[in-house]
Amino acid sequence: MELFTHEYFMNEALKQAKIAFEEGEIPVGAVIVSKNKIIGRGYNQTEKLQDVTAHAEMIAITSAANYLGAKYLIDCRLYVTLEPCPMCAGALFWSQIGEVYYAASDPKRGFHQCNDSMLHPKTKVFSGIMAEPAQDLVNEFFKKLRE
Amino acid sequence: MELFTHEYFMNEALKQAKIAFEEGEIPVGAVIVSKNKIIGRGYNQTEKLQDVTAHAEMIAITSAANYLGAKYLIDCRLYVTLEPCPMCAGALFWSQIGEVYYAASDPKRGFHQCNDSMLHPKTKVFSGIMAEPAQDLVNEFFKKLRE
Repeated sequence: MELFTHEYFMNEALKQAKIAFEEGEIPVGAVIVSKNKIIGRGYNQTEKLQDVTAHAEMIAITSAANYLGAKYLIDCRLYVTLEPCPMCAGALFWSQIGEVYYAASDPKRGFHQCNDSMLHPKTKVFSGIMAEPAQDLVNEFFKKLRE
Repeated sequence: MELFTHEYFMNEALKQAKIAFEEGEIPVGAVIVSKNKIIGRGYNQTEKLQDVTAHAEMIAITSAANYLGAKYLIDCRLYVTLEPCPMCAGALFWSQIGEVYYAASDPKRGFHQCNDSMLHPKTKVFSGIMAEPAQDLVNEFFKKLRE
């Protein structure tokens, strides 16, 4: 895969989602990128940690802020395999992150269901990159869960 | 102050807010109560930790879940000195917390500005207990900041 493309970084987020899958978590993964360098990674750990706040994006935000030693992520990009929920969108608002790329939409729990303008007015949002493999992974997880 | 009243627990949240104030943080504090026992405490630490996710409520939720060894806070009550923001309301949604009591309203950043039904449909919300001292503390903080 070509380096430093949106597909490259979304694939890195997908790798995080696959770790979640292997660990029995709803498979969502995220990376945060600054100047084409990944400075934060996260995957959903709500079951392992028994903590509803341990979403992929939240872990990636904290990780990126630790890396930078600064709480604002203005020049950063988030790549996440599923549309952020309102909690994560609220955290992204506070971070003033520059760009958000999400793969699959979440018509049930995605932030767009809550309020279309939850993110910071300066944040640009893009969706659909690698939506199919991201959605397939979620579908496979719930199929396995039902069996 | 009489034990185990709403005022008692909100005063405990206010004590947390005062710690935040002393540490130069926007003074918001929270406690989570189960069976009249405080099982989680938190105060805003976004500056110290340089982490936008370190709101009082988020820290209290993680702390209470760790105490219980369980991520759902169905039979718990949150007392927080300021109306939760959308991030914290989103986390409270996932926790399915039983009751939320907030002191002062936040007409600018409170979750009601985002969406009135962000919390879980089973969560009961109450506001206004000790709103004045909670608001006074926030006002004093911003007054000091401007000086």
